[in-house]
Amino acid sequence: MQFSATQIAGLINGKVEGDPEVAVDSFGKIEEARPGQLAFLANPKYEDHLYTTRASIILLNDHLALKGKVQATLIRVPDAYLAFAALLSKYQEMVKQHLTGIQEPSYISTTAMLGEHVFIGAFAYIGEDVKIGNHTKVYPQVYIGDGVNIGEDSVILPGAKIYSGCVIGKQVTIHAGCVIGSDGFGFAPQTDGSFKKIPQMGNVVVEDGVEIGANTTIDRATIGSTLIRAGAKLDNLIQIAHNVEVGNHTVIAAQAGVSGSTKLGKNVMVGGQVGIVGHLQIADGSRINAQSGVTKSLKTPNSAVTGSPAYDYTSALRSQVAVRHLPDFEKRIQELERKLAQLLAVNS
Amino acid sequence: MQFSATQIAGLINGKVEGDPEVAVDSFGKIEEARPGQLAFLANPKYEDHLYTTRASIILLNDHLALKGKVQATLIRVPDAYLAFAALLSKYQEMVKQHLTGIQEPSYISTTAMLGEHVFIGAFAYIGEDVKIGNHTKVYPQVYIGDGVNIGEDSVILPGAKIYSGCVIGKQVTIHAGCVIGSDGFGFAPQTDGSFKKIPQMGNVVVEDGVEIGANTTIDRATIGSTLIRAGAKLDNLIQIAHNVEVGNHTVIAAQAGVSGSTKLGKNVMVGGQVGIVGHLQIADGSRINAQSGVTKSLKTPNSAVTGSPAYDYTSALRSQVAVRHLPDFEKRIQELERKLAQLLAVNS
Amino acid sequence: MQFSATQIAGLINGKVEGDPEVAVDSFGKIEEARPGQLAFLANPKYEDHLYTTRASIILLNDHLALKGKVQATLIRVPDAYLAFAALLSKYQEMVKQHLTGIQEPSYISTTAMLGEHVFIGAFAYIGEDVKIGNHTKVYPQVYIGDGVNIGEDSVILPGAKIYSGCVIGKQVTIHAGCVIGSDGFGFAPQTDGSFKKIPQMGNVVVEDGVEIGANTTIDRATIGSTLIRAGAKLDNLIQIAHNVEVGNHTVIAAQAGVSGSTKLGKNVMVGGQVGIVGHLQIADGSRINAQSGVTKSLKTPNSAVTGSPAYDYTSALRSQVAVRHLPDFEKRIQELERKLAQLLAVNS
Repeated sequence: MQFSATQIAGLINGKVEGDPEVAVDSFGKIEEARPGQLAFLANPKYEDHLYTTRASIILLNDHLALKGKVQATLIRVPDAYLAFAALLSKYQEMVKQHLTGIQEPSYISTTAMLGEHVFIGAFAYIGEDVKIGNHTKVYPQVYIGDGVNIGEDSVILPGAKIYSGCVIGKQVTIHAGCVIGSDGFGFAPQTDGSFKKIPQMGNVVVEDGVEIGANTTIDRATIGSTLIRAGAKLDNLIQIAHNVEVGNHTVIAAQAGVSGSTKLGKNVMVGGQVGIVGHLQIADGSRINAQSGVTKSLKTPNSAVTGSPAYDYTSALRSQVAVRHLPDFEKRIQELERKLAQLLAVNS
Repeated sequence: MQFSATQIAGLINGKVEGDPEVAVDSFGKIEEARPGQLAFLANPKYEDHLYTTRASIILLNDHLALKGKVQATLIRVPDAYLAFAALLSKYQEMVKQHLTGIQEPSYISTTAMLGEHVFIGAFAYIGEDVKIGNHTKVYPQVYIGDGVNIGEDSVILPGAKIYSGCVIGKQVTIHAGCVIGSDGFGFAPQTDGSFKKIPQMGNVVVEDGVEIGANTTIDRATIGSTLIRAGAKLDNLIQIAHNVEVGNHTVIAAQAGVSGSTKLGKNVMVGGQVGIVGHLQIADGSRINAQSGVTKSLKTPNSAVTGSPAYDYTSALRSQVAVRHLPDFEKRIQELERKLAQLLAVNS
Repeated sequence: MQFSATQIAGLINGKVEGDPEVAVDSFGKIEEARPGQLAFLANPKYEDHLYTTRASIILLNDHLALKGKVQATLIRVPDAYLAFAALLSKYQEMVKQHLTGIQEPSYISTTAMLGEHVFIGAFAYIGEDVKIGNHTKVYPQVYIGDGVNIGEDSVILPGAKIYSGCVIGKQVTIHAGCVIGSDGFGFAPQTDGSFKKIPQMGNVVVEDGVEIGANTTIDRATIGSTLIRAGAKLDNLIQIAHNVEVGNHTVIAAQAGVSGSTKLGKNVMVGGQVGIVGHLQIADGSRINAQSGVTKSLKTPNSAVTGSPAYDYTSALRSQVAVRHLPDFEKRIQELERKLAQLLAVNS
């Protein structure tokens, strides 16, 4: 699909400077783009590229005054980064429109209820009593267990697996390989040293607007629901254990893990590879630095922690610096002991 | 399915107090349950809920004396938690009974041998010379490579992949997205800086009663077998490298990783996100705290370690506390140096 | 398939000592092998097994002088380990030869272009405009999105998912459950605390000779390409974020994660469970110890780091040892303070 500068300016309420008829068919970075591509300049640090870029169209902040000659057609907007994002969204929307209908072979239970304009990819499995909302796309090789309910405008990418009884909201995106609703890790130790499985009878509820990354796993509750609240964003390869609750607009980076029954508040930010032990309360707005190990509830909203075990960010950083000086400390303590011993010998 | 208090008491050898005809159709937590649900009270800490719960039936420990009026019908048992677990198991068993037969389309090699009452889901792939035991369930989109042997009463959940030549025991559960038998990570460095793959010719042997979590990966041995011994329980997103051995009833929490050729003994407990380097011996009953990095063999049975690198749990905790005081230590050392210098100046 | 000692010696240019007609049909470890198996002895530490092994054929280094009687037929080579690896490669090559053709049912878009002698497994999905090179094997349940281009002699194992627009080179191996080209984790914070998705419009480019482990995830670039350069080797459950670049012959161990836009140079070695923050430069030949957290660019080639946060390997190890002595330091500081206070009291 080709778009002219005029068409693009119309989509994002921008003003064209230069040739309004020049057309593009894809996107590039300002420093790498080729003719026929559209790029943007948001960070003034990269302004030099503006005068050398080969891109045909550049989105640019309104206020930026040019210091030289620009070959590309400019489209001025209040915020070039947001305008670019909006443009990409609209482009993706157009691309997605055509993805509808049911590919064969797929397996759709006779009791499943599919909304209008859904897409069901080849080799997808739709269990008994499943409900799928309008415009939702289920990619090839996805598994939707019995009784699962998925809202409108959601996207389940190739090979994701949703166990029976889980509930997925509207405008949810679940990436490839994601597993939703696997059994929680619950085993009762027996006197002979073996373990007896505790049946995991709950489900997972994923609310509206959530995005879940590739190969992330979210276990079903033992009883009740593991809960991912509206607007939360989870990256790849994350582990969410049974009965966990992730609050609204909480963001979790890749490879982090949250143990059973822990509740994360709203707008929490969890760094990559963080581990959080079970049965904790993490206050709204908490920030947990990458690789931290959180062993106690965080009760003060908007506080930041780091380290394993994690504690107050500023103190922990000071300790981390001090650790590097430790071998030096040891020498200084030895020196003090030596001098003091001499002094004491003299004074005795 | 509805069950009366009398029927349930019969299943778990309990004694009914209250209306024996009241019926339930599902399970809930004592504090959240609605009428028509069954809940349990095991921890006396939560006894207050007993007098306010809306659940229709409560499983309760024999010895607990009531302090108030209870609306629900009670079923008395020696251990309410175990009785609840037993009840859930029986319920799941009934639910599972109906899952049998072969869904179409599936791919079953003509040389595969399927036991009685097996379930093969749609889009499952069963390779050449595969053997599958009686009552085993292979969910949709599972891949069973050539020559794989699976025992009786096992469950392979959607999309799990078992490479050729692996051996899976009886009553094994393998969750969705799990990969068993992928190539070990073995490459011989070449003089030009490149790497030459060492073919991985062994397999993975998973013994009876093992449970393996979602998206966990277990690599095949270079030669011989990577071995998961009977009764071991592995959580989600775990990495088990080639030629590792996991002992009987050893429990590994999510996102832990065990490097090549390491042998874990029996009844070892490995915390979440633990890393264990290769070629170690971990003694029976060792406990490795979450996020630890184990760099040396643990030779004393039943010992506990923490930290990265990991060492004795109690000492490591003491050091972790001391680290927090480090910036203070630095000030105290400076103060000592200053005072001592003054003293020395006076004494010289 | 059975091979005689003479046939095997011919394949690897070895010299036979003992019965040239003895035959083997599989491989074993020298200490575990049974009659009919071939094993090797490379490490002189294990020489004792040579005199007790039940293997029928042993590959042995030229220079090793026998200290006792050996039952097995020996094949002498300059380097027994490399010869064994070469032999396994040749064996695997023979086994693979027969894997060709298209299994049904599979879904192959009419616009897809398949090379000669390709294998497409059952339930594989091949999207529009996909190109697959000669001799490439696409295992069952693999998903190849629209416009993906895969070179010759590559192997995509069961259930791997490659999103639209990605480019895979020649002789690439992608293991089961791997996800290539999922959306990068990019969300713009909004003033109401919610997040707006930044469309991820780039792709992933995997160059020739790369191997990628099971359930590893590699996100597509926001714009441009996430790049895995020729000869790189990635283990299982690794996270590679958007716009990352992994250099030639760089090796990454299991469960490591690399955050957005970080560039790893050539011949870097990244240990298991390492985390690397975004927008860093990691110099050629850097070695990053397992579980390290890299927070700053590594600018000196061939340097080694460890710890979280990571710094110079030798210094960090010294600090780690000192941390264990910290409780002792505290006592020594207290003792110094006490003695000094006494001295000062005496001198005042």
